[in-house]
Amino acid sequence: MQVKGKSYRTIWLNEAGKVCIIDQRNLPHRFEICELQSCSQVATAIREMWVRGAPLIGGAAAFGMYLACQDNRGEAEFIKAIRHSADILLQSRPTAVNLAWAVEKQLTVISNASNKQEAVLAAKENAQMIVEQDVQICESIGEHGLPLLQEISKSKNGETVNILTHCNAGWLATIDWGTATAPIYKAHRRGIPVHVWVDETRPRNQGARITAFELGMEGIPHTIITDNTGGHLMQHGMVDICITGTDRTTRTGDVANKIGTYLKALAAFDNQIPFYVALPSPTIDWNISNGIAEIPIEQRSESEVKCIQGLLGDDIVSVQLAPDSSPCANYAFDVTPARLVTGLITERGVCSASEEGLASLFPDFG
Amino acid sequence: MQVKGKSYRTIWLNEAGKVCIIDQRNLPHRFEICELQSCSQVATAIREMWVRGAPLIGGAAAFGMYLACQDNRGEAEFIKAIRHSADILLQSRPTAVNLAWAVEKQLTVISNASNKQEAVLAAKENAQMIVEQDVQICESIGEHGLPLLQEISKSKNGETVNILTHCNAGWLATIDWGTATAPIYKAHRRGIPVHVWVDETRPRNQGARITAFELGMEGIPHTIITDNTGGHLMQHGMVDICITGTDRTTRTGDVANKIGTYLKALAAFDNQIPFYVALPSPTIDWNISNGIAEIPIEQRSESEVKCIQGLLGDDIVSVQLAPDSSPCANYAFDVTPARLVTGLITERGVCSASEEGLASLFPDFG
Repeated sequence: MQVKGKSYRTIWLNEAGKVCIIDQRNLPHRFEICELQSCSQVATAIREMWVRGAPLIGGAAAFGMYLACQDNRGEAEFIKAIRHSADILLQSRPTAVNLAWAVEKQLTVISNASNKQEAVLAAKENAQMIVEQDVQICESIGEHGLPLLQEISKSKNGETVNILTHCNAGWLATIDWGTATAPIYKAHRRGIPVHVWVDETRPRNQGARITAFELGMEGIPHTIITDNTGGHLMQHGMVDICITGTDRTTRTGDVANKIGTYLKALAAFDNQIPFYVALPSPTIDWNISNGIAEIPIEQRSESEVKCIQGLLGDDIVSVQLAPDSSPCANYAFDVTPARLVTGLITERGVCSASEEGLASLFPDFG
Repeated sequence: MQVKGKSYRTIWLNEAGKVCIIDQRNLPHRFEICELQSCSQVATAIREMWVRGAPLIGGAAAFGMYLACQDNRGEAEFIKAIRHSADILLQSRPTAVNLAWAVEKQLTVISNASNKQEAVLAAKENAQMIVEQDVQICESIGEHGLPLLQEISKSKNGETVNILTHCNAGWLATIDWGTATAPIYKAHRRGIPVHVWVDETRPRNQGARITAFELGMEGIPHTIITDNTGGHLMQHGMVDICITGTDRTTRTGDVANKIGTYLKALAAFDNQIPFYVALPSPTIDWNISNGIAEIPIEQRSESEVKCIQGLLGDDIVSVQLAPDSSPCANYAFDVTPARLVTGLITERGVCSASEEGLASLFPDFG
């Protein structure tokens, strides 16, 4: 996607063969490219959220394993060293499913190589394949979601389609295109007038910081709102469709996504507004059927609630919002039951949020 | 209520006869008392939210009218000047019905006075009566709401009662006791163990800043959460009851309250958790029956969404959260339809959120 008129992905190899990322910590105030020099630096980048978003974490881990091969090409006990690097990566965000998946894929390829040099090359090629696949998945989600927006546009006689999204399920959470944003980018490029209501998404404000940034850079009209606002907009006919991402989806169509998604789904349901969730199939957990009971919800530091980061003059600072003595709780996700989800937009098409719906698109799983 | 061990109200006449308020802009970081010198300064204090909360806005407006009498005692066209001051006050905040109610009450008293001096005195006495009445109303709300918490406590065998509240309908939004908080303060003083989930309440964070401050000063256990979190807590049995305030109530029981209240009511309804709204009867607008269609929703500055105020070292600063070029929308209230409200806690008792319910408690109105 575009940043200041230039095409980017979130992670890539530059001409010198170095792994480059967009450092997302200081967005939108600073757009910074960073070269990752070693596998341990990749682990730091994942842990400290220079990169975030499940698909991008997977891509970064894949390149981390490639760097691990480079770092250790002089080691006598090469495979042992690689496994050690893999462990460091796996510990960086232990809950991210894509991370383990990408590391595992790389370990297989590296183990199958007949020598170190071949292992380095195989890990590099495999990392590139993993990110290419993610780009294709997201672009397919965009193509399958596009007709939903086209239909609304048609039913409104070409008037602007108003989409509400929560958090950042945009290209900056993936390699390119995004998941929830992919249909929006596709629609915009086809000339369909769209406008996005961007939930700021406390506590980390990925909506106000990252989604707003990427939509702005692509020239897509949008308005930032507090997380409290969506219900009012829906009551007053100002939202045509909601599209969010998901971090984990049960085989029955329950979706775990950024905390607050459930509240927007309730409001959409109450106002008969379609609520879609866009997802790459690797986020489907075929082993579980009850999201509220079975998906563990990560609790993060209370400082993310008590304090917030923002721009003061030219400096990025953290300010305290609440009394010293007041404790804060920080649940990172909530679960939206399938009954509130109009449909799931996957790389294989759109289906109902149900066991039957998912099974119809993915008969090879489940 | 208590601040650092000393009893306060939110507005009072000091020994020199000056109108004093707690300036709420820099809470919780700074507790500051401020003298209001003129009616136009009262209007500024209301508009710029040095004071806020429907009952306190009413009380402040009443004292504003008293100051208007003082300001204009030299005017030949006294009543005309007073009406001009009334208009300025009325324009300071559009949604709270108490403002117009208090100004109207004062205009009547002032018009009935036989001369300017008598008008000044009558306006002063009436302002004092209005705030005394509010204290009594809030305390009655507390007494009528208390049994709801006692019952939950009993059904939980004395385990802590978990209450979720949104924004600040505490004593700092009224003159004393608060509306939503009054039953909580009453329960706490009776030794019932309570814990309050405090929605931070973006954009102005009246929950994290003001509700947390006042609960802390009264020694009531509480935890600040982002506005996104309540639904998750309710899904997991961590909320026993929701109590919020309201800025305007239709005669049919729809309630306009701080933006985001509707989302919490939806979540409570979805999880069969009682959702109560505490209100002094002056917030009832007997002329309207459809809250969503008829209550005007104030739109405030986008800077309240784009920026946020917090403590940096010893300074209170405002930091920017979003890209320069991204517009923000700032709707201050939303309307929760009566069908989602379990009951209304008024100074005359608890009733259903319906025309019949309100009429049963207030047969003299409607």
